Amino acid sequence: MTVFDPPIREYIKGGGFIELEEMLGDDLTPARVARISYLSKGDEEANRKLLKKLIDLGHFSPFEQQVFRFKIDGIPMYIGEQLLRHRIASPLKRSFRYTSPDKGKKISFTVEGINEIIHIPPELLGLRESHIENKDELLREMIEHFKKGIDLYRKLVESGLRKEAARTVLPAGLRTTLYWTINMRSLMNFLTLRLNPKAQWEMRELAKAVARILKRVVPLTMEKFLEKEGLEKYLHE
Amino acid sequence: MTVFDPPIREYIKGGGFIELEEMLGDDLTPARVARISYLSKGDEEANRKLLKKLIDLGHFSPFEQQVFRFKIDGIPMYIGEQLLRHRIASPLKRSFRYTSPDKGKKISFTVEGINEIIHIPPELLGLRESHIENKDELLREMIEHFKKGIDLYRKLVESGLRKEAARTVLPAGLRTTLYWTINMRSLMNFLTLRLNPKAQWEMRELAKAVARILKRVVPLTMEKFLEKEGLEKYLHE
Amino acid sequence: MTVFDPPIREYIKGGGFIELEEMLGDDLTPARVARISYLSKGDEEANRKLLKKLIDLGHFSPFEQQVFRFKIDGIPMYIGEQLLRHRIASPLKRSFRYTSPDKGKKISFTVEGINEIIHIPPELLGLRESHIENKDELLREMIEHFKKGIDLYRKLVESGLRKEAARTVLPAGLRTTLYWTINMRSLMNFLTLRLNPKAQWEMRELAKAVARILKRVVPLTMEKFLEKEGLEKYLHE
Amino acid sequence: MTVFDPPIREYIKGGGFIELEEMLGDDLTPARVARISYLSKGDEEANRKLLKKLIDLGHFSPFEQQVFRFKIDGIPMYIGEQLLRHRIASPLKRSFRYTSPDKGKKISFTVEGINEIIHIPPELLGLRESHIENKDELLREMIEHFKKGIDLYRKLVESGLRKEAARTVLPAGLRTTLYWTINMRSLMNFLTLRLNPKAQWEMRELAKAVARILKRVVPLTMEKFLEKEGLEKYLHE
Repeated sequence: MTVFDPPIREYIKGGGFIELEEMLGDDLTPARVARISYLSKGDEEANRKLLKKLIDLGHFSPFEQQVFRFKIDGIPMYIGEQLLRHRIASPLKRSFRYTSPDKGKKISFTVEGINEIIHIPPELLGLRESHIENKDELLREMIEHFKKGIDLYRKLVESGLRKEAARTVLPAGLRTTLYWTINMRSLMNFLTLRLNPKAQWEMRELAKAVARILKRVVPLTMEKFLEKEGLEKYLHE
Repeated sequence: MTVFDPPIREYIKGGGFIELEEMLGDDLTPARVARISYLSKGDEEANRKLLKKLIDLGHFSPFEQQVFRFKIDGIPMYIGEQLLRHRIASPLKRSFRYTSPDKGKKISFTVEGINEIIHIPPELLGLRESHIENKDELLREMIEHFKKGIDLYRKLVESGLRKEAARTVLPAGLRTTLYWTINMRSLMNFLTLRLNPKAQWEMRELAKAVARILKRVVPLTMEKFLEKEGLEKYLHE
Repeated sequence: MTVFDPPIREYIKGGGFIELEEMLGDDLTPARVARISYLSKGDEEANRKLLKKLIDLGHFSPFEQQVFRFKIDGIPMYIGEQLLRHRIASPLKRSFRYTSPDKGKKISFTVEGINEIIHIPPELLGLRESHIENKDELLREMIEHFKKGIDLYRKLVESGLRKEAARTVLPAGLRTTLYWTINMRSLMNFLTLRLNPKAQWEMRELAKAVARILKRVVPLTMEKFLEKEGLEKYLHE
Repeated sequence: MTVFDPPIREYIKGGGFIELEEMLGDDLTPARVARISYLSKGDEEANRKLLKKLIDLGHFSPFEQQVFRFKIDGIPMYIGEQLLRHRIASPLKRSFRYTSPDKGKKISFTVEGINEIIHIPPELLGLRESHIENKDELLREMIEHFKKGIDLYRKLVESGLRKEAARTVLPAGLRTTLYWTINMRSLMNFLTLRLNPKAQWEMRELAKAVARILKRVVPLTMEKFLEKEGLEKYLHE
C-alpha cells in the first residue's frame, strides 16, 4: 500500500490522462490474505508462487484486496458513461449540472485547444489510420459546430436557464473527469472487456493506460493475468 | 407476479415514457417471505400489517423480493447516465456506438419533432415557469444547432468515420431508451433521492412516473413507504 | 414469466429440496431485451439464434433479466453460508436467533429423523462410496451427540439464556431454510463454481438440483450454457 | 492512507479481537474527492467543514473512497455469517472444509481454553448480567459437550471422512477468523444496524470494537456520523 506523490500518470492516446493516487495492498497481498483459508504460512517466494496459482485456478476473490484510487481526466462523456457500467467500483464525477465546460480553463478555439475540452476523433487528428479524405473540411466544420454549441450554451445560461438543462446543446464528446476507486478483481474484468478489439478505440486507449500503470505497481499480478487471458498482445496494437 | 400486456405506461412530463412490462412478486410478497426468519405464518390481513411494520422498522431486505422490468423510452442521455449511478440494478441500453439518432424514425425539424429525439428544456416549451424572455429566439437557435449537428454527424459517417466516434458532435441531450430491471429496495433508494427537489427537474419527472406506476401495482407498499419517507408531497409539485 | 403453482420441486441428494416459486422473464427474454442495443427486431427463430450467440460471445448482462425466486429447504448451515458468498443475490433465511431447531416439527431421534434436521454425511448413509469401516458405530455416536446437543440447548433456553447464544452448542450441520432470489447471470457463475468437482459434495448436489430446475424452465439458455462451459458432464456424476 | 505496523488492535468483549491492517484514504479524503463534482478547491479547514456537510446532507457516496482492511479473529461462526450479509464488502475466511478446529493451536479443555476456540455465552462467564442460576452446571455440561464433539470430529476424520463433512458435529459457536475489506459507506450501514440494541450482543461487541478503531483513524468522520445517527450512546452500554 502506497500513496503515490506525485501520482503515477499515464497519458491516454487521443487526449486526457489517468493517475494512480493511492493503493491498498501490494502485489503479493492477495496471496498473503488467501492463506487464511488454510491457515497456512509462506515466505515471499512461496507467496509469489501462490499468487500465480490463484490466477491459474481462477480464484479471483483475493484480488478484491488490492484497491486503487485513480483520477481520470479528459475522457469523453460517453467513455465516462461506459465506465459506469462497471458496477463493482466507486466513481465520483465532475457534474455538468453545476459546472460550465470552461470552468477553470479558458477555451481556445484551435484544433488543439478544442481537443482539450471536447473529443475530436483520432482519425481526423492523424492518430489513427482511415480512408477519410476530406479531413480538413470535417475538422473545420467540427470546430465551428463546437464553438456554436458553447456560444449557445452561454447564451442559454445568461438568459436564466439552469446549467443542468442548458447542457442539452453541449456536444456528447465533451471531456469529463472523475475519481475511480476500484479493486483488482473488478479491474481484471474491465481489462478483459476493454482491451479487446471489440471495445471502442477510445476506451481501449484508456484500458491500455490503466494496464501500463498496473504493470508498474502490481507487476507479478499483471504479468500472470495478461498471460492467462492472452491480453498482452492488445497492449501494443 | 404478472406480465403486463399491454404494459402499464406513464408519460414523463417534458417527453418520453416509462412502461412496466413485468413484475416478480406482488404487493404482499415481502411480508410472506420475511416470515421465514421466524418460521411464522399469517393470513392476508396479518401480512398487510407485517408489510407496514417492515417499512416502519426499516427492514428493507425483504423488498428485494419484488423485482420490476421497466422499459424507459425517450430520456436525455444525461438522465440515462444518472440512472446508471444506481448500481443495484440491471440496465440494458440502446447503444450509439451502433445506432444513428434517426434509426427507426424520420426526424422532423420542428420543435415538436426535435423534442422527440433531443431534449428541449421545459422552460422553453412553456412546461415550466421561468423568467427567460427571449424564448422564441433561443428555441430557434437551438433547433438550428441540433439540425447542424445531425447534418455534420451524417457527413462524418458518410465520410467513413466510425459511428461511435462521430457521435462526439451529437448533442448531450439526445434521447435514449433502455430496459431497467430493478428491485423495490433499490427503487426505494431511487425514489428518496430522485423525487427530492434537489434532483434535476427532468429526473424528478421520471421518478414521479415510476412512482405513479408503482402505486398501481404495489399500492400498500408505496402508501406506507411514501408516508414514512415524507415523499408523497413531491408527487404533486 | 410465471408463477409456479405448485412450485417446481427437486430433491437434493442427501436431504432437503429446492423449489422454484416464481420467475421473471422467460427463456428468450435475454435475446429480446438485448435487441435494444441495436434497436433491432427479430422473430422467435431469430431470438433463439441470438440467445445462443450471446452465450457464445460471453455477453452475459442480458441474462440479468431472468430472475428466479427459489425456496431452499433443509440444507446444512455451512452450505447456507456458502450461498451467502454469492453476493449478487437476495437471500432471506430462517434465523436461529429466534427459532429453536425443533420449531414446527417434532424431532425423532432415529437416523432418518435426525437427518431431517441435522446433516448426516452421505458416506455414513450409504449414499456415497467410502472406505470408512466403522459406519454403524460412528452413526450411533453421532446421533447420540446430536441428541445431547439438543437436550443441552433446551436446558440452556429453559434456564433463561437467549436462544441466539444457546445455539453455540447446536451442531454446525443443523439444517436451515431460505428464500433465494437471484438472476441467471449470477446463477451461471454459481453453477460454474458449484458443479465443479472441487466444490463440496453437499454443495454440488444442491447445484445439480438448481440445474435440473433451470433445464425445465429455461431449456435453451441452459443447453447452450452447459455446453459452452462444459458443465453437462457434472450433472450425471 | 497508511499501513498500520503493528496493526491497530481492539479486543472484543467475550472473546476475539479485530485489527486494522491498512487503510486507503484518510479522514478528509471524502471531502477532497467530493470537490470534483463542482471542480472546487478548499484548504484543510474548508475540507473539514465540507466533510461534516456531506454527512449532514446524507451524501454518502464519497465515503466509498475510504477503504479498510481488517483482520477479525475469534468470532463465532454465526457472527461470521452475519458479516457476510453485508454484501458491499470483500471477506476472505478460514475454511473448515480444510482446517481442523485445532489447527495451529493445542486445545485446552478448561473454560478459558475452550472459550478461545468455541464461543461460550457471556452470561455464563459473568460478562453479562442474567437470572440464570445453574451457571456452573451448565458451563460444565457445555465444556463436556464441546469436548465430545471435538473427539467425535477427530474420530470421523481418522476413519476417513472428509473434514468438510465431519464438521457437521462441530458446535455452531466454533470461532473463526477472516479478512474483511470494506469501505466506510458500507461500514456506516454496518454500524447503524449492528450497534443497535436489536442486534445480537456478540455482534454489538464486534461493532463497538470496529467503532473504537475507526474513531482513532477517521475521528472527524466518526464524530459527525455517530452524532447524526445518534449512535454514540450505544458505544458505552
